[in-house]
Amino acid sequence: MKFHSRKWVKPEDLNANGTLFGGKVLAWIDEEAALYSIVQLENKKVVTKYMSEINFMSNAQKGDIIEIGIEVVKFGTTSITLNCEVRNKMTHESIVTVDNIIMVNLDDMGNPKPHGKTKVEYVKDRLAKKEKEVSG
Amino acid sequence: MKFHSRKWVKPEDLNANGTLFGGKVLAWIDEEAALYSIVQLENKKVVTKYMSEINFMSNAQKGDIIEIGIEVVKFGTTSITLNCEVRNKMTHESIVTVDNIIMVNLDDMGNPKPHGKTKVEYVKDRLAKKEKEVSG
Amino acid sequence: MKFHSRKWVKPEDLNANGTLFGGKVLAWIDEEAALYSIVQLENKKVVTKYMSEINFMSNAQKGDIIEIGIEVVKFGTTSITLNCEVRNKMTHESIVTVDNIIMVNLDDMGNPKPHGKTKVEYVKDRLAKKEKEVSG
Amino acid sequence: MKFHSRKWVKPEDLNANGTLFGGKVLAWIDEEAALYSIVQLENKKVVTKYMSEINFMSNAQKGDIIEIGIEVVKFGTTSITLNCEVRNKMTHESIVTVDNIIMVNLDDMGNPKPHGKTKVEYVKDRLAKKEKEVSG
Amino acid sequence: MKFHSRKWVKPEDLNANGTLFGGKVLAWIDEEAALYSIVQLENKKVVTKYMSEINFMSNAQKGDIIEIGIEVVKFGTTSITLNCEVRNKMTHESIVTVDNIIMVNLDDMGNPKPHGKTKVEYVKDRLAKKEKEVSG
Amino acid sequence: MKFHSRKWVKPEDLNANGTLFGGKVLAWIDEEAALYSIVQLENKKVVTKYMSEINFMSNAQKGDIIEIGIEVVKFGTTSITLNCEVRNKMTHESIVTVDNIIMVNLDDMGNPKPHGKTKVEYVKDRLAKKEKEVSG
Repeated sequence: MKFHSRKWVKPEDLNANGTLFGGKVLAWIDEEAALYSIVQLENKKVVTKYMSEINFMSNAQKGDIIEIGIEVVKFGTTSITLNCEVRNKMTHESIVTVDNIIMVNLDDMGNPKPHGKTKVEYVKDRLAKKEKEVSG
Repeated sequence: MKFHSRKWVKPEDLNANGTLFGGKVLAWIDEEAALYSIVQLENKKVVTKYMSEINFMSNAQKGDIIEIGIEVVKFGTTSITLNCEVRNKMTHESIVTVDNIIMVNLDDMGNPKPHGKTKVEYVKDRLAKKEKEVSG
Repeated sequence: MKFHSRKWVKPEDLNANGTLFGGKVLAWIDEEAALYSIVQLENKKVVTKYMSEINFMSNAQKGDIIEIGIEVVKFGTTSITLNCEVRNKMTHESIVTVDNIIMVNLDDMGNPKPHGKTKVEYVKDRLAKKEKEVSG
Repeated sequence: MKFHSRKWVKPEDLNANGTLFGGKVLAWIDEEAALYSIVQLENKKVVTKYMSEINFMSNAQKGDIIEIGIEVVKFGTTSITLNCEVRNKMTHESIVTVDNIIMVNLDDMGNPKPHGKTKVEYVKDRLAKKEKEVSG
Repeated sequence: MKFHSRKWVKPEDLNANGTLFGGKVLAWIDEEAALYSIVQLENKKVVTKYMSEINFMSNAQKGDIIEIGIEVVKFGTTSITLNCEVRNKMTHESIVTVDNIIMVNLDDMGNPKPHGKTKVEYVKDRLAKKEKEVSG
Repeated sequence: MKFHSRKWVKPEDLNANGTLFGGKVLAWIDEEAALYSIVQLENKKVVTKYMSEINFMSNAQKGDIIEIGIEVVKFGTTSITLNCEVRNKMTHESIVTVDNIIMVNLDDMGNPKPHGKTKVEYVKDRLAKKEKEVSG
């Protein structure tokens, strides 16, 4: 699993008990899943359809650095299934895990649309390929 | 199921596609589950431990009114399990459902603590009882 | 008065003295008045025109649960007048009261428009009626 | 009336109709009244006690610049009464006016405390006086 | 330098160390520079092009009042260069200074456009002039 | 340069012209610089002291994915100097660059403190080392 986005837990992210607000973590997961899917599927119209059970394994405090990891579980025809972990950047202790997040690829009318992707791609490869096509 | 909290979907709640951001809905659910548990368990230190699978059944647009319903599934010894539905206030169309949200009752040290509750209580009954005790 | 929406007072809702920021309460009241009016008048274009004097009767702390109550004072031709109370959910102590909030019903051009409503309606009745019309 | 704080109306400040959210304006007024009082009373513990009726006279759009004006109506013993106007910076058209906002000066326990002020003071005069005392 | 906009440092503005979050100060500076330019250039389409080095000279705490000052350094053909200082309102201690902020005046297509301005103007003079033209 | 944190440009991140608000980008850079320094210096008390000139090279739109890259320029005695680039994730087009961001390592009293670091470290190496020490 690759961990990319990082967050610095600030007062605005806390619940009334002074620990990281669970709802904030869920919002961060949803955003990361969405943007990861947008990059992979090369389509900006992607929506969250389903999340499997969510385990809150430990908590975070003000000042903690957390990081969010995403991994592709499966490429469907019109969807992509992701696995996600949020953990403490300094200790690697798991904060939340979600085994399956299903994101659906939509057309302009908001209907599911085949995305034609079958494996993880890297933006730098795509850009190198484009450049080669142009210069070749 | 009783629906209490209502939200007016505003620009700050939208994702980049102009529909209600899934992460926002999850944050609203988590807050509602937390505050419902705090009221029932009469303890401010309550944390989200687990959410069962989450289905995003329809979406909402800018200007929609949505409402959040909570129902108790089970009173555990140190926990309470809730069922939650978010729906469109005007059409009653379901937006998101979560069958089981487990909230844990904590002591001051952050450890699970029995809450002694076995059934749903209403604040007005508690207040009437208190008043009676005082005046009685 | 029916109390619906509830809020969990979190760090982001506090003023610099660590109590609930008055401006936040006013924003919550305005949102609740707007969405209540939208539901009653069945029109998404409703604006706040006037609020009568606002009394801040007590304050709230981090971790408090508050609830917002709305009651119709009067149905005007193009407006609706509401009465609002914000109180502590656990103690029913009043935090803020506003006797009259006038919301105006607008047409697409932003001009006042008669709404044709004269009494409080419930969404479930409307939906039942619609279903009956369809099935009947 | 002196107009100081200015705001640039951004998407996050809009209601679902795409105009400036009334609740946001109220929050801006409350913050301005609080900080003005803190400066005048030289005490950080000041709370909003009362606002007289609020008239929403016109609205603002995304991209508008608005400015907030404050004027002292009266110095009480433990309070200060302010008059406030929010207007469009470019046209000077009034958006909201509030004739009387009563702010109360508190001691550390949260009880009203005499502030000893009877007229508007300017920070530069206070600083000049302090410097003179030090150098003199 | 004229200081206009004021902010009350609230919990939502703090970093995890409990002092004013640097990123928040930068966002406030950028907003103030944008709205000042919009007023001067009488054009809503203005973007930040460049900021010279930024010195964080002191910090602010929860409850502090800060104020933001802007001064025109130079009127270019399609740009305006501003100088900015953020300071503590009560002590006039400098928090952040930025010597040069270049804002560019854009046309509807997003291309630089001459603004025709050569000196600072005041809105009240513009409005007085307009009124005179109308009445004259 | 390693690019980690990613953002999905949402309505709440836009200025009034509908493009990414410059102040938001600056806040994201400051947060990333802070958390990167906290991880490297293994100290939660780190503050931004200085940013060299900031060039806004292109803009971003609603729905764009952006990523933030950080690279160490220099380890000082009590500081760390970083280089930062914000770019479009899909096209790698530069949005903002800042050559030097100086972050200072503080002690509990808020005074600069030597951090003893001289090169970039990876958390996984630190954790492996700790484990070895424990098991060894």
